[in-house]
Amino acid sequence: MPESVEKPEMRMAELSRRSELSVPTIKYYLREGLLQPGRRTSVNQAVYDQTHLERLRLIRALTTVAGLRLAKVRAVVAAVDGQASEVEAMGVTQDVLVGEVDGDDADASAILDRAITARGWRCETKSPAYRAAVSAVAMLGTEGLTPILDRLDAYVEAAEDVGRTDLDAIADAGSLEDRIRGVVLGSVLRRPLLEALVLLAQQHFAQELTRTEEG
Amino acid sequence: MPESVEKPEMRMAELSRRSELSVPTIKYYLREGLLQPGRRTSVNQAVYDQTHLERLRLIRALTTVAGLRLAKVRAVVAAVDGQASEVEAMGVTQDVLVGEVDGDDADASAILDRAITARGWRCETKSPAYRAAVSAVAMLGTEGLTPILDRLDAYVEAAEDVGRTDLDAIADAGSLEDRIRGVVLGSVLRRPLLEALVLLAQQHFAQELTRTEEG
Repeated sequence: MPESVEKPEMRMAELSRRSELSVPTIKYYLREGLLQPGRRTSVNQAVYDQTHLERLRLIRALTTVAGLRLAKVRAVVAAVDGQASEVEAMGVTQDVLVGEVDGDDADASAILDRAITARGWRCETKSPAYRAAVSAVAMLGTEGLTPILDRLDAYVEAAEDVGRTDLDAIADAGSLEDRIRGVVLGSVLRRPLLEALVLLAQQHFAQELTRTEEG
Repeated sequence: MPESVEKPEMRMAELSRRSELSVPTIKYYLREGLLQPGRRTSVNQAVYDQTHLERLRLIRALTTVAGLRLAKVRAVVAAVDGQASEVEAMGVTQDVLVGEVDGDDADASAILDRAITARGWRCETKSPAYRAAVSAVAMLGTEGLTPILDRLDAYVEAAEDVGRTDLDAIADAGSLEDRIRGVVLGSVLRRPLLEALVLLAQQHFAQELTRTEEG
């Protein structure tokens, strides 16, 4: 992936302005080791560059937009910093965003597996996302919504289009930090968009239905 | 739509058992006019039928599953009871589920309109769903997530598949009550399913990406 070419250095005040975070907040992230130290220019001064800005934007997305606690922010930052591959870093981010889910239902799991195997998906069955899907299937079963479960293949296919587009949307970002930030913001902000669009599609099809019946 | 053929009558105790609602709760709904009166068999007794059960199941979906207040439940029940067409009743239900949204952004509205007009959707621009979509587009713009907005067409297309499948799933229900209940439960319970499936799709494509790069 291409790194940004120019890395002009900046002082703390500008870092604060450009990251939209206060100086005390940035100093707190420095002390906590979430933000890497700047390049020291004197005993009391340091300069920062684009990598610091990207890190702060990622932290801001995790805290302000996703509303995560510092322990979870730390887990994502550690994955980005550490030896983890990009896929592992994205996995950690997903796990943190989904949180703990109780999804242990053999019947629901079998229903889900059949549908995702049919499309050739390889998924991490220990991941919170998988458990969340099992839990959702189980809940639909409990409420007797079999017409939805009968159409699981159609939902899986639509989810595939959304997931592919999501990854496509973050692929252009120059740094791993920016791509992980894209995963976080995408997950939090793309979700209400998709659900609102689904409601509009329902409006459209409901009217179509009426016109057909009238016509 | 086919009405259920047999309508065996039942006493309050059985209505309570089959609706999974307590007798005092059912009596409260009777007093509030949310549940239509039963057929009186003596001064102190009445019998109820399938239509009462369907109504109670709808109310239970609105209160317990969707967590709506009684005023909003009343709006849905009034639409189902009233002279409103099925599409209008579904519209009221959608509005109630989405709630009040502040979505008044000319730029975001133009971006959204272009995408939904391209697919020939006719939408109610005064509806909470439309305002929620405008608000989501505006938020993505504010956070600089242009890569997602650039792919709005792909999300609209996926949403179309989901919305069509949602309507398809409720079309089989025998009564309007059951179809509206399907809209409510679908909206509340299908949502976490779709989002979990999207995460699994992301897992799948992220791994594909790595395999391609390695191979």
